[in-house]
Formats: sequence, structure tokens, C-alpha cells
Amino acid sequence: MKKLINNPNDVVTDSLTGVAAAHPDLLEVDLPNHIVYRATKKDGKVAIISGGGSGHEPLHSGFVGEGMLDAACCGEVFTSPVPDQIMEATNRVDSGAGVLHIVKNYTGDVMNFEMAAEMAADMEGTTVRAVIVEDDVAVQDSLYTAGRRGVGGTVFVEKIAGALAEEGADLDAVAEVAQKVADNTRSFGLALTSCTVPAAGKPTFELGENEIELGIGIHGEPGRERRPLQSAHELAKELVDPILHDMDFTGAPVVVMLGGMGGTPLSELYLMYGEVAKLLKEAGVEVARVLVGDYVTSLEMAGCALSLLRADEELLRLWDAPVLTTGLRWGK
Amino acid sequence: MKKLINNPNDVVTDSLTGVAAAHPDLLEVDLPNHIVYRATKKDGKVAIISGGGSGHEPLHSGFVGEGMLDAACCGEVFTSPVPDQIMEATNRVDSGAGVLHIVKNYTGDVMNFEMAAEMAADMEGTTVRAVIVEDDVAVQDSLYTAGRRGVGGTVFVEKIAGALAEEGADLDAVAEVAQKVADNTRSFGLALTSCTVPAAGKPTFELGENEIELGIGIHGEPGRERRPLQSAHELAKELVDPILHDMDFTGAPVVVMLGGMGGTPLSELYLMYGEVAKLLKEAGVEVARVLVGDYVTSLEMAGCALSLLRADEELLRLWDAPVLTTGLRWGK
Repeated sequence: MKKLINNPNDVVTDSLTGVAAAHPDLLEVDLPNHIVYRATKKDGKVAIISGGGSGHEPLHSGFVGEGMLDAACCGEVFTSPVPDQIMEATNRVDSGAGVLHIVKNYTGDVMNFEMAAEMAADMEGTTVRAVIVEDDVAVQDSLYTAGRRGVGGTVFVEKIAGALAEEGADLDAVAEVAQKVADNTRSFGLALTSCTVPAAGKPTFELGENEIELGIGIHGEPGRERRPLQSAHELAKELVDPILHDMDFTGAPVVVMLGGMGGTPLSELYLMYGEVAKLLKEAGVEVARVLVGDYVTSLEMAGCALSLLRADEELLRLWDAPVLTTGLRWGK
Repeated sequence: MKKLINNPNDVVTDSLTGVAAAHPDLLEVDLPNHIVYRATKKDGKVAIISGGGSGHEPLHSGFVGEGMLDAACCGEVFTSPVPDQIMEATNRVDSGAGVLHIVKNYTGDVMNFEMAAEMAADMEGTTVRAVIVEDDVAVQDSLYTAGRRGVGGTVFVEKIAGALAEEGADLDAVAEVAQKVADNTRSFGLALTSCTVPAAGKPTFELGENEIELGIGIHGEPGRERRPLQSAHELAKELVDPILHDMDFTGAPVVVMLGGMGGTPLSELYLMYGEVAKLLKEAGVEVARVLVGDYVTSLEMAGCALSLLRADEELLRLWDAPVLTTGLRWGK
């Protein structure tokens, strides 16, 4: 295992130490609790929290800031954050308008966010709503999931709910738009290589020299099938087809994310997007906004994932609203 | 070789096809000539062009846009752009105020940009100034370089010169500030793995299971030495020491970039930055601005590089000026 780390058991603390050092103007890091907060609290605003296992950066800590999340709860690598941690963040960010939890659909995450919400309600009367993201069309149940997994589409949910909360909408409205985005998002990913969890010290799985895995999960959990590597032109079809088969993306403006898994160069992601764009056009999908890059990763895994959001004018307006985070940033 | 590509000889065209498809509002791509232009030309502004071999994305095409470059000339992977291509871009972006070439110090790049400048002057009377970036303190001469190589610091030069040009400064002033940034920037990188040039089909070099290369070039050209992998804590010293040994970075605000080589996860880059930040503080360096992420990469190479700019209030003001590119983006 070759990584830029110290003790493999300290990678989350050590990495958050760097986040704190790099962005004191933007973020406040609670190092003992592994929570990243927005540096400036906005009173009266609905607060939004997300979190999950570490190793998917910039998700979630990179999406904390103006127009997106108020806090991210970072679990150990590929491990759910714990209820106490989430409760701590929930109570701290609440300024009276309530808190929305955005949760990727993994059994541990869902359970721990639920427990934290109950604890926060019991102890401090904090009102919490939750939205579960389950956008991965690859498999119905998975190693750590009942139902579909939550993957890249989480970025859409966090960005759009964050924008509405920033405008001063109430908790019901923010939860509703988050649910609408989650309901209208579909994703599918593929891997060219495995990743290595630092504490495990060896690759999560093995792929042959010329083999890929279609429908891979963001923790390296099994997808649909393994097959020989094909051209980008052919692989684009493997990404697009299952998504369009699952939901109708015609007749509405669509937000597209072609995301890297961490170890694939940006030039390959753009190349892949070029192939995907042709297929979407052929299928009559009207692409309104595009993101290409690393947003929801699996450590150093090589591969990519496609996420599509069936939007409308209101969702596009919220997508375009200013955001100031380390992972997504655009102007006022 | 596992890559998301079609024909290995077409990767630049195919990748730029994706860039064009993804960002029609921001960029205009001359696909036959492999040139990426800013979509909206600003009349009367000094134009800035950079370029070099592909494979370092987001450099340079990802830095085309408002407040940074007017055009990027993309060579084949790790291969200089050709004079005709650079001349074409130079003449096209000139709106009468002249053109600045920002050139990384590689023999082919320097020669081809020079020839292009002469051709543009002869044929259309275009006034061209050039700034050579040579920030890599690792080696004096290298496989493709007489003198120091141009690496991560190029981002500082392009951002700051771009901001001054956007404000309407004349060519002499823009060239002067670019030179000032180049003169005050130092970098040093290390690799954990090699990269694979698509047309070559095999790794550029081999590193042992537990071996790293200090002072690596961004094309995988040899650095200072190979040694066993150490902890991030120890490796940070290997990055910081040669830079601080080469130039005094105390007594001025410093812009720091901890950049990934392409295949290293963001969490490791932040971890590494945390270690670097401690050393800079101990050395009395006042860190004013920080970038952590992939900005000047070497395909899928794992590793990182540190770049420091000894700035002043004026350079910081220009650094903070709005920029709207796919690779660097902050608000108005």
C-alpha cells in the first residue's frame, strides 16, 4: 500500500487537520468529533447536515459552506458516522429553523442518522427531517444496503437543498425540494481498479489486468458484472443505458455529472463525457448543466460514474445559485 | 494499460470533444487545431496564451476563461504544441493590445512558442511577449529541459497575469507581473507511481512496491533520488526543505499550492497539506492563500507537489480577483 499518510488508523484526523489548516476562513473543524462546520453560522436559516464514511472526498466535507451544507459528519474510511457525532452536529447547527439530514442509503448511515435525530429531538427539542438518497440503479440490494445505494446524486441534493435553505425557505420546503431532487436522480458507475482502505492495507477487491466492473459501488462493493475493458465509446453506453432504462429523462432540462472515482485523470473523464453527451443527444435528452470531475470518489479507485437529474426551471435556478465551498464554487 | 479511451492516438481530440460538449457557454474549441478559446472575446484586452503537452489537466485548457487565459494550445500527450498551432491562436486572440505567452521551461515548448511569436509578428504584426516559468527546484537540467523545469507555479503565473490583463493593463505591465510571479515561485514534487502515456501503452518508468521518487518531473522524468516510502510527516519535509533552501519565503505573504499528480485522493492531499502547514509555520512562513487539489497533473500518477509564491499585497489582490474557468473558479 503506497499512500501519503502517517498511521493508517489516523487518516481521518490527519486529513481533517489539513482541511482546518487550509481553509480557516471558510470552515471550522471539530477535530475530536470529526465534524466540519461552516465558519459563519447564518441565524434563522434551516441547517443542512450530511455525512458518511470518509474516502469519498470532496463529498461531504468539501461541500460545507455558503449555499450548501452547514456541517459534514465524517466517519472513519467507508464507515458510517456515529449517532453521538451526528447529534452533536445537529444540535450545534440548529438556529431554531430546524435541520435537514441528507443521508446516502447505506444501512449504517440511515440507522445512525435516525438515532441521532431522535436523540437531538429528545434532548434539545431539535426538529429534524431526513432525506435518503438512493440513486444508484446498478443493484437493488448491496453489501451494505437494503434498496438502492446513494452515490453521486447526493451532490445534486446537497447543492439544491442548500441553495433553497440559503434563501430562507422553511424546513418543509427544503426537505421537499431535497426529496424531489433525490426522486429525480439516477446514477451508474464503473471501476477500472480497486481502492485500498488504509486500515486494511490491501485492495478491497481484485480486477484482472484487462477487466472492469460495471455497476460498482463507491466502497468497492460488487456491481452487476465484470467484463473485459472496452473502448470509452462502448463503455459510455454501459453507463447511459441502465439510467435511461430506469427513468424517462426526456422533456425536461437535465443536470449531468460525469464524476471520477478518484484515480482517473480529468482528460479521461472529459473524453468519457464526450461519448456520453452523444448518446444523451441521440436519446433526446436535453442537457442543461454539466459537471465533469471528482465529486464523489472512492479513494484512488480508477473509474467513473454518471449521474442525471431530471430538473425543471426552479431546480436549475437553485443549481445556479451561488455556492462557496472547497468542492463546488461559483460566483454571486 | 487500463484507460477510459478509444484509440490511444486520438486521446487529445476525443478529450477536447468532451470539453467542447461540456462547456459551450464558457469555451470554444478548435478541434482540428487542438486550441481551447474563451467563448467571449474581450476587445482591447491583452490576450494571454499558454499551452504545452496534454496530460496535465486542468492545466492549461481548464484555465481558459474570464480572468485567466484567452487560449490554451494543447499538444499531444506530454508533447509540445506546434508553432503553427500557437501562431493560429496568437493571431486569433489578439485584439490589438498584444499577446503574452506563458511557457513552461521545456526545450520544445520554448522553441515552438518562440517560432510562433516570430511568425505571428512577421505575418500579422502581432506583438508578443513571453514569460518562461521555471519553478522546479528539484533538478538543474532534465530530460527535456535546459535549466529548471516549469511545473505547478504556472498556475500562479496564469492566474495573476490573467487578472491584471482583465483589468485592462497594457502588455508591458502584464508581462512584468507574470515575470515577477515566475521569479518568486518555487516547486518540488514527488511520485508514488508512474503514469502511462496512452500511445506508449506502458508505464513511463517503474517504481518498486515500496519506493518513491523525490523531485519527479511532471512527465515522469527523473528527479533527485529514489528511496523507500516514508510517512507523510517525513515526506512533507522532503517537499518543504528544498524550496525553503532555494529562496527566502519569510517576511511576505505566501500563496501555497499542494497539488496532486492525478492519482492521489484529495484526502491524502489534505493530509499532506496539514504536515506541510506545520513545517511552514515552524519556518516562519506566513501562509496567506492555499490551494489543495489537482491543478497540474501527470495523467494518473500518484504523488503530489508543493508550490510556493512569495507574494505581496498587489499579487494577493490579483490572486483574489474573480476567475471563471473550469479549473479555478471564484466569485465576483
